[in-house]
Parts: sequence; C-alpha cells; structure tokens
Amino acid sequence: MNRVERVACVYRVEASAGAIEARALALALEQSVELPLGAIGDARIREQVVATVEAIEAIEAIEAIDARAANAGPAWAVTIGLAAETTGPEPGQLLNMMFGNASLQPDVALLDARLPASVLAAMPGPAFGIDGVRALVGAGRRPLSCTALKPQGLGPGALAALARSFAVAGIDLIKDDHGIADQGSAPFAQRVPMIQRAVARANAASGGASVYAPSLSGGPAAIAAQLRIAREEGVRCVLACPMLLGVSNFAELVRGEGRFAIVAHPALAGAARIGPALLLGRLFRLFGADATIFPNFGGRFSYSRETCRAIVRAAREPLGEHRATLPVPAGGMNVDRVEEMVAEFGHDLMLLIGGHLLEAGAKMPQRAREFAERVRRQSNTAA
Amino acid sequence: MNRVERVACVYRVEASAGAIEARALALALEQSVELPLGAIGDARIREQVVATVEAIEAIEAIEAIDARAANAGPAWAVTIGLAAETTGPEPGQLLNMMFGNASLQPDVALLDARLPASVLAAMPGPAFGIDGVRALVGAGRRPLSCTALKPQGLGPGALAALARSFAVAGIDLIKDDHGIADQGSAPFAQRVPMIQRAVARANAASGGASVYAPSLSGGPAAIAAQLRIAREEGVRCVLACPMLLGVSNFAELVRGEGRFAIVAHPALAGAARIGPALLLGRLFRLFGADATIFPNFGGRFSYSRETCRAIVRAAREPLGEHRATLPVPAGGMNVDRVEEMVAEFGHDLMLLIGGHLLEAGAKMPQRAREFAERVRRQSNTAA
Repeated sequence: MNRVERVACVYRVEASAGAIEARALALALEQSVELPLGAIGDARIREQVVATVEAIEAIEAIEAIDARAANAGPAWAVTIGLAAETTGPEPGQLLNMMFGNASLQPDVALLDARLPASVLAAMPGPAFGIDGVRALVGAGRRPLSCTALKPQGLGPGALAALARSFAVAGIDLIKDDHGIADQGSAPFAQRVPMIQRAVARANAASGGASVYAPSLSGGPAAIAAQLRIAREEGVRCVLACPMLLGVSNFAELVRGEGRFAIVAHPALAGAARIGPALLLGRLFRLFGADATIFPNFGGRFSYSRETCRAIVRAAREPLGEHRATLPVPAGGMNVDRVEEMVAEFGHDLMLLIGGHLLEAGAKMPQRAREFAERVRRQSNTAA
Repeated sequence: MNRVERVACVYRVEASAGAIEARALALALEQSVELPLGAIGDARIREQVVATVEAIEAIEAIEAIDARAANAGPAWAVTIGLAAETTGPEPGQLLNMMFGNASLQPDVALLDARLPASVLAAMPGPAFGIDGVRALVGAGRRPLSCTALKPQGLGPGALAALARSFAVAGIDLIKDDHGIADQGSAPFAQRVPMIQRAVARANAASGGASVYAPSLSGGPAAIAAQLRIAREEGVRCVLACPMLLGVSNFAELVRGEGRFAIVAHPALAGAARIGPALLLGRLFRLFGADATIFPNFGGRFSYSRETCRAIVRAAREPLGEHRATLPVPAGGMNVDRVEEMVAEFGHDLMLLIGGHLLEAGAKMPQRAREFAERVRRQSNTAA
C-alpha cells in the first residue's frame, strides 16, 4: 500500500498511444524532482517525493478546455499523484507543483485536481463564504446583485456619484472595475473614502445595505496601504485578482486580514491551460475567495455552459471544512438574463452586470433598479 | 496627432476577414474601459483612456507561439495602443492591462509589446545586469555556468554536500531547484545557512567564487523572513518565479531589496498565451530580473530555436536606460551542448545544466568540473 498522501492532478496530455506512458512518467518527474529516476539514489525520495503516474485514460469526448484542442491529435487524461509534502502546503508552491514547469509544455493542460485532507486543511478558505457575504448586504437566502464602477479614467467624484446611483437603485455589491487600480485619474486614497461615504449616505437615506468593494493592486506595500485605508473607512469587501497578485500574496495579505469579504477576479487566469473549474472554482476558493467572478456563457467570453456549471459546482460543493464560495457569472451579461441565470445556477449566486447598466445612458438609474429588483424577486424558497 | 502616450501591444487574433475589425475594436475596449464606446460620455476618456486599434495585419507565416495555433483558421496581428496612464505604471497593472481579461479569450494571444519611455522609466529593471552578475562570480567577459540543487526531498545536509561538490568543481552559480521551497524536508531557515557556508568553505579552499542562489517562495511575510536570513548569511543572489509570486510582489519585495542579483524562473509562465520573448525576456527584465531562465530548444520543452533567439535578444537589446539581463538556456541541456549554445547565443550567457550532472552518479564531480571548464574555456574575445 502506498501510504504517501498525494494530490491527484489530472492533466490532458497529447501523445500517440505508443508514447503516452513515457510522456506521463516524464510529466510526473517534471512536476516533482526534475530528474530522471535513475539519477535518484535516495529510496525515501523515490517512494515518497517522486510523483507517481496513477492512471492514463484515452480522452474521447472530454470537453476541450481550449477551443483549439478539439482539433488536436490523440489525447489522454493522465492522473499524476504529487506527494503532499512537496506542495508546501502553501498556495504558491501548490500551484508550482501542479503546473509550474508543465505550463511551459504546450502538449499539457491541467484539467482537475483532488486534494487530500491535509492540504485542504492547510489552505485558508473563505472567511465569509456565501452566508457571510449575504449577511454583509443584509440579504436572506436569495441571489445577490453586483455591478462595477467604470470606465477607468473617471475621477473619484464621478465614480462616487455612480456608486451613489447604484446604491440608491438597491444593488447589493458595487465593485471597482478590475482595471481601476491606483492610477492618477482616481488614486485609491482619494476615491475609496469618497465612494465608501457616498454609498453609506445612500444607504442611510434609503435604508439599504449596499456594499462597496474597492480593487486592490500593486506590491505588498501598496496593498498594505490600501487595506489600511479600507479599514479606516469601514470598507467590508474588496476585489482582488489572485493571478496578478500572486496566489500566496492573495492568501496572506488579502485573506489573512480576515475582516474583508473577498471577490476574486479572473484576470490573467487564462482560458487554455488550467481548467477553469479547478482554478476559478476550487483553488481560488481554497486560497480565500468568498465570491469568484467567471465569464459566463453567452457573453463576451467563450466558456461553454458545461464549463460554467463546473465552476459553479466547484465553488459550492463540499471541500474539507471550507465555506462555500459565491459564484458570480459575468462578462457581458444583461438584465434580461437574470431569471435564466438563476434557473441555470440556482439561488446561491451573485449576478454581475456592469456595461449593460451604463449603456442605458440617462436611463441607467431605472435599469439599475430593474436589475436589483429582478434579482431580489428571485424566490428564495427553491434553493 | 494623437499625443497620448501608449503601450503598443501586438496580439494574435483568430477571426474571419469580415469579423476582424469588430473583433479588434472589442479587444481594445476589453483591455481598457470594458464598455462599448457608446456608453462613454466623457470626451477625455474616449480620447485618452480608451485603447486604440493601431494596426491589423494578416498573419501568414508568423511563428505560432503555440503548436496548436498552426492548425487554426485565419489569424491577424492586431496592434492595440493602451494608454500609458491606464497601466499604473506598475508591473501588475501593466500586465493586467496587457492581458488580464484577454487571457480568458482563447482566440487571443499576446505576442509583443513596445513600451513608451515613461513606462520603461517607471519599471525597476535589473539592479545588477549582466556585468553585475559576472562581477559577483568574479568572471570576466565569458559565459557563466549554473547548476541546480535537486531533487527536492533531500535534507539540508545532503543539499549542502551537493553544493560543496559543485563549488569545488568551479561552477559559477549554484541555485536551488525551483521546486525547493520551504517544505519540511529542507526548510529555508535550515538549509540556506548550511548551503551558503558550504559554498563559502569550498571557495575559501579553492580560491573560487561560486555563488549560491536560494529559492524564494510564499507570501510577503515568508519572503521577508527568507530575505532576512539571506542577508544575514551573506547570500548575494536569489531565485524567484515572477508569475508565481505575482509580478508586483517580485518587483517590490525581491528587486526592491537591491542587494541580491535575481535569477527569474519561468514557472507558471505558460507556453501558449503570452509570447515568451515578451514575458521571459522584456517584461521579466523590466520587473528586475538580472538573469532569466528559459527552456532551450532541443530539451524537455518545445520552444523553437527562433523563440529562444527572440528571448535572448529581448533580454539584451537596448531598453530605455535599463541594464541587460543574462539569458539562461536550460531545461534538459547537457554538457556536450556547451559550445553549441555559446555559438548560438553568444558569450553574454549563463548555461544551466542540472540533471545531466546528477545523472553521472559517482562521476558527478568530474562531469561538473568538465561543465565548468568547458564554459570557462569559451573565448571571451568574440563577444
């Protein structure tokens, strides 16, 4: 019996039938010791550190995670067992062992991974989870509405006025566009207090509980300064891009703070090389995301319906002791799709619509209100 | 005249001839304002913030950056002008604007980028550069030799003994394998002092000047602790993976320290979506890498000869006021390729050979010495 605790990673590997066994072994070595087996004299390392080839199965009709892959030659689902001791266990090193070097090999994609209890337990997971985010915005068991402050280039005053309109309309979560960082047009230190206060005033007037989520960016010193401002202003939620910040940075700085619900944005997460359900669903959740934005089917991005369903499942299914993460379909959605998206993904959901509200021009306030109300009207009994 | 300073990004976009103009405009909007033009009322934003489509050219025989792309339909080189003011200028936000959302769209790859003077000047660039790394290891104008301590799973004592052998053999730079992080088998705090001292003793005995580069990993607190240990132990060079750490983190924490030469490792840098010469060459250099490891052709990875040449060019060509970065071909190289690699890439080069030395088993010391000597023997006059 092999009693070494392992992370079981499933890769899509392109190879001929005659070559796949050797290719799978090479992948296992690449993602662990980066040496041929013959160069390893130490028995403990051969047995407990070297990754193992657990299974090789021909892929017939598995969904291509990249549109191009459908045209490729024979492909295999190769399951590699990474020794848990090699993975940190720490978010960056986990990702390094899962896909660090293999990311450089175009015949390999990472489709899925099953993590053992010790690795699950070592990851922070969501501090708020779905229930915690609902509590923040004072919502019962219903879907939430979310929109984005944009475009970048607007000054802090214009962004605050926009946020106020969204709050008056009753939208639950109002986030910075992920392109809004700390640029000169609206520096974090100027815009965040103005927007947070504008939302607070609108809440006070309306009795609402809209929440503003500013976007974090930059290196550790910049993020620490941004978190300090957020704390001082009573901000309760932030937006962050794990792949841009670095996943260890994300887990430590952002999740480590503990007092902010975290909305993860998929920027730089790629479409083609790491399975979206694994990365945006399971891993971002393990690293601390309370909500995870994904490009929904039928919008500006090309994830399939089945990929989107898999992301939603990964965000909410049992995962060690971790709270569930709120899935957030986005990317060119519109108000007329509210009911369809809830029917598709269920009520434990946050709907993000940005551009479609702003495109209404002078009628934006009405469209924002319609959005908030249609989301709120979704029955909370079926979930 | 358009006087807005812009970053000119060249993307490979798949689209039919009839669709490419609209697709290019959509890409420009996605990578700037994430809104349709019609939804932008502010004239300053339309003129100075929205990215522009600068050129669209059919791609005939441009090198596919992904093996699969060669099978795809019509493709175009689309040049998008990102307004410099949207890019931070800060490494993470620059990458976000270049490829954040587009990374989620499988019909788009980022091939190249030309950065204006203001953005170049805002990036840290190498603190040491090629000359500085040569000075660290006491070398004149010749190629350098580099090897890796591996496999992970070895204890600190075994790694230190290995490092000592490599130093005795005269190898210039001895780095941790990038899979060696802070695992229980060889925690950073235990192994780095032991290895650093083993190399120092070997240097003292031989009159050599081998340098040890430990691998940094984890979140900001972990990295700060690792840098502190490195400082205390007199370490002069470190290994770091910008895509795992997050590029802002890399630039701020690692480069910001200023006293360590930095070897950048390409883990998680992907093969398929961002042009390797842009990412591993130009951008890693701008973010502060003094040396950049890349998977050379003819090894375990599949970069083409032309891609490798382009990486080397990008690492060394004039780039604002920045120092040149030392290109490091690697990934399954062997000692018999020393002369060929130098002939291919010139003398401003560091050759990294890991596994091939360890595969020699009991004869490792001789092979390591042969490697160091063959590299040292490369004429320094032709460069």
